[in-house]
Amino acid sequence: MRNLNPKYYGDPIARSYLLELPRPSTSDNRSDERRLREGLLAVSGLNDVDIPLPICRELPTLLRKANYRIRAVILNVDNRWELITIDDRYDNPSCYGVAVDLGSTGIVFYLVDLSECSVVDTRTVENPQIKYGEDILTRIQFASAAEGLQVLQRMVIECFNKSIKKICEKHSIHTEDIYAVSVSGNTTMAHLFLGLDPSHLCKAPYIPVVNTPDMIPAVELGISIHPRGRIYVLPNLGSYVGGDILGGILVSGMHRSKKVSLFVDVGTNAEVVLGNSEWMIACAGAAGPALEGGVLTCGIRAQKGAIEHVTINRKGPGLSYRTIEDGKPLGICGSGVIHLLAEMFLAGLVDSRGELAVKKDPSRIVDTPHGKGYVVVFAGESAHGEDILITEADIKNLMRSKGAMFTILSVITQNVGITFEEIKKFFVAGTFGNYIEPQKAIAIGMLPDIPLKRYKPLGNASGKGAVAVLLSNRKRKELYRIRDKITYLEMNINADFMSQFTSSLFLPHTNLSLFPSVANQGSEP
Amino acid sequence: MRNLNPKYYGDPIARSYLLELPRPSTSDNRSDERRLREGLLAVSGLNDVDIPLPICRELPTLLRKANYRIRAVILNVDNRWELITIDDRYDNPSCYGVAVDLGSTGIVFYLVDLSECSVVDTRTVENPQIKYGEDILTRIQFASAAEGLQVLQRMVIECFNKSIKKICEKHSIHTEDIYAVSVSGNTTMAHLFLGLDPSHLCKAPYIPVVNTPDMIPAVELGISIHPRGRIYVLPNLGSYVGGDILGGILVSGMHRSKKVSLFVDVGTNAEVVLGNSEWMIACAGAAGPALEGGVLTCGIRAQKGAIEHVTINRKGPGLSYRTIEDGKPLGICGSGVIHLLAEMFLAGLVDSRGELAVKKDPSRIVDTPHGKGYVVVFAGESAHGEDILITEADIKNLMRSKGAMFTILSVITQNVGITFEEIKKFFVAGTFGNYIEPQKAIAIGMLPDIPLKRYKPLGNASGKGAVAVLLSNRKRKELYRIRDKITYLEMNINADFMSQFTSSLFLPHTNLSLFPSVANQGSEP
Repeated sequence: MRNLNPKYYGDPIARSYLLELPRPSTSDNRSDERRLREGLLAVSGLNDVDIPLPICRELPTLLRKANYRIRAVILNVDNRWELITIDDRYDNPSCYGVAVDLGSTGIVFYLVDLSECSVVDTRTVENPQIKYGEDILTRIQFASAAEGLQVLQRMVIECFNKSIKKICEKHSIHTEDIYAVSVSGNTTMAHLFLGLDPSHLCKAPYIPVVNTPDMIPAVELGISIHPRGRIYVLPNLGSYVGGDILGGILVSGMHRSKKVSLFVDVGTNAEVVLGNSEWMIACAGAAGPALEGGVLTCGIRAQKGAIEHVTINRKGPGLSYRTIEDGKPLGICGSGVIHLLAEMFLAGLVDSRGELAVKKDPSRIVDTPHGKGYVVVFAGESAHGEDILITEADIKNLMRSKGAMFTILSVITQNVGITFEEIKKFFVAGTFGNYIEPQKAIAIGMLPDIPLKRYKPLGNASGKGAVAVLLSNRKRKELYRIRDKITYLEMNINADFMSQFTSSLFLPHTNLSLFPSVANQGSEP
Repeated sequence: MRNLNPKYYGDPIARSYLLELPRPSTSDNRSDERRLREGLLAVSGLNDVDIPLPICRELPTLLRKANYRIRAVILNVDNRWELITIDDRYDNPSCYGVAVDLGSTGIVFYLVDLSECSVVDTRTVENPQIKYGEDILTRIQFASAAEGLQVLQRMVIECFNKSIKKICEKHSIHTEDIYAVSVSGNTTMAHLFLGLDPSHLCKAPYIPVVNTPDMIPAVELGISIHPRGRIYVLPNLGSYVGGDILGGILVSGMHRSKKVSLFVDVGTNAEVVLGNSEWMIACAGAAGPALEGGVLTCGIRAQKGAIEHVTINRKGPGLSYRTIEDGKPLGICGSGVIHLLAEMFLAGLVDSRGELAVKKDPSRIVDTPHGKGYVVVFAGESAHGEDILITEADIKNLMRSKGAMFTILSVITQNVGITFEEIKKFFVAGTFGNYIEPQKAIAIGMLPDIPLKRYKPLGNASGKGAVAVLLSNRKRKELYRIRDKITYLEMNINADFMSQFTSSLFLPHTNLSLFPSVANQGSEP
């Protein structure tokens, strides 16, 4: 993202100006404040910049000491401009922001140079709230106990402060030169971050406290950036469609295209948005638990040593695999699991009902407490000295997840009366989406069988959305237009879902005509 | 001001709404915040009300406890609306503000009911800063010493808090139900109130720190009203034309009339504004010191026992007088002094050069260290057992003041090329202006000899301006239009002033044709 087109993004949330103001005289006895205001107007075209009283207090001394050559930083706060700081750094217009993808598992920080409109660096850390619950529901329960919400909020804010400090230190930037932090996360993560009671999020009728938070003074949240800086949390559409999704749609651009696109973010929940510049429909459902670390016997998060790629010999026993950063194998990450299951199915190691075909490679089949298992890496080769394998129970779990995913996609398209063929772009978001191979996901019947080139991995779309709203005030407004355009389709109470789900619990599906390409895949090793 | 026309003023700075919000349901799963926002939109038509995070935090509990029937108060902060408070007082829409005329001598507080658009009560106190200097220059000097500014600021803020508390207690109103305070004062008073360095106000080129302060959170200034309330300080045009003058013009309405009007506020300085809806010109000059208490031998501030009215027998010795509230005579207030000098001149007790005619009433003429004096009240009748008199030195002082006043008026009208006759309304502001009798001020040549009915006393125009900006957001904007329309004429460097001043140092003037009515006044006792 280093070389963003400045024409596209050149409207950052904070701007730094070097001003040389005319000296006062008998014929120009404007006040210091007005002199500054009109100086800002001249360079920025902005007529109505708020000037806080404490800055007015500094003005007389600073202007005269600096001989009327000053630097002024202004910030776009909820559509008005506010003067954030003035100083005598007439030679240094630097001005930074931090964009954050606040995931329930990992948090990614982007240091953004607002003068250059570029991302300087990124830093990924684990969400410390994991200590109080891997999944969101546990954290919501923890938050409802005495002080629980405050504990969770403090944790994540401390994590922000530590990470912002580290990333700044690395680039010799003062944290005081950070003027804005944008935060993109699901609705629960945003509530916990803001200290808002999340308890109504997880019970019908699933009411968030806030859809559209106003910008918040950094000091009010205890975020250690410039004391007059602001925190911008991306808006959400409801409990199930958070700022991360809206931010993802923003960077996909699907809301600006006349052609129909589909956006999917696969995590614990799958969030799906279908639409174009005219209309949009969203839904969400539990589709991914089996794809996240901790559910499968040997499932781990994407990290060094996670198996992400497997190739199984079609004609006899044996396989080869690849791990992240070539680490000693530790387990299988989400995208690796999809890859593995597709290969097993295409090689005939598993049948359409998900049962293991022992005869294909008996040397790798073992018995486990959860039924038979297929060993990917033997104990001797693994990092921890134990077999890395996938059990029949794991496979059933996976098939429920992939079946749910496909059913959601089917229901939402049927709901607006279009076929998969009519979807011209299929955006897959999430770091997960970056590594998933659509061909393999199609092979197991998780994603629809459309031409591969229509699949567009977006990478960390949530994080990119957070960066975009720092670099463009126009994009921030677009976010609200996206949100207001979307209709939410409640999947939990949708009868179509259950009737179609059953057909999806096969590899790839009971209706093979939906997956014409899968037969060909089997023949290509 | 109790019965203000609501059509004219019905646009108050804070509004209180009683809202019954729809309950959430599966088909209406808006967030609490959005529910509130759209509820506010429905009753107010306002689309874009800022909602601070702390209020969002209260929302889930309050809404459910109050069964979705709440009261919401919004405040117009620098042209946007902000939600200030929500509570369960569904039966009580009350909502108040306090308007303040912040004079260097006296401070007047107006308790304003923003729901009813009426003034409930007023309260006048002495400006406690007087302890550190009767006049403004002494206070500016005091402010430049270490902590001096903070001391002066704290004093006036404590005075605000004490007075607001008292006036609220009297009417059983919680100070927390005050959501805004407007402050109208001269530029120095506003600077001291805001803690802004006033030192550049009194030396060339006379630069204020601020012309247009943004609204300030009450907590930032330590004003004890609702913690999210705001303080609005009326803008100024420069060191010599303060918010008090702009507020006065606002209530005069001269900026909306096509006819030419003149506005004058007589105090230590005289501020004069001439113009109409097309143009305005302002100037200021030291015109009034002799009219304030403390300068003349027996001059006192307007208070109980101050002589405000004198009638001198035209045909022989003797006089009669009237005091404020019929108190035992204590001294002579500003308007009383003008009245006295006019009567003395018309009765032939003083000649056009300001010298006493001893023969007219020898029993009342005494010798003093400052030349001869004329006794108005003998020691036996006075409150303090001493003569109350006016000396020849006092008269010379008075003549310099009245001469300066007349010269300012002459110069400003000549500057735009109009005659006094063309001035259709002549507004006299200040409590002083309320009591001055134009006929007497004309007799001594202080005000121009135009038909008496054109003189319009405005009373405390500064205070009324402060009330107006609480009751009307439109009026607050008008203030900026007035300010931007005014051209300031620097009198200190005006050569015309000195050349004309000399002719004004006579009673009424060297050019008697300017005062045709004065001869007639002499014959009417």
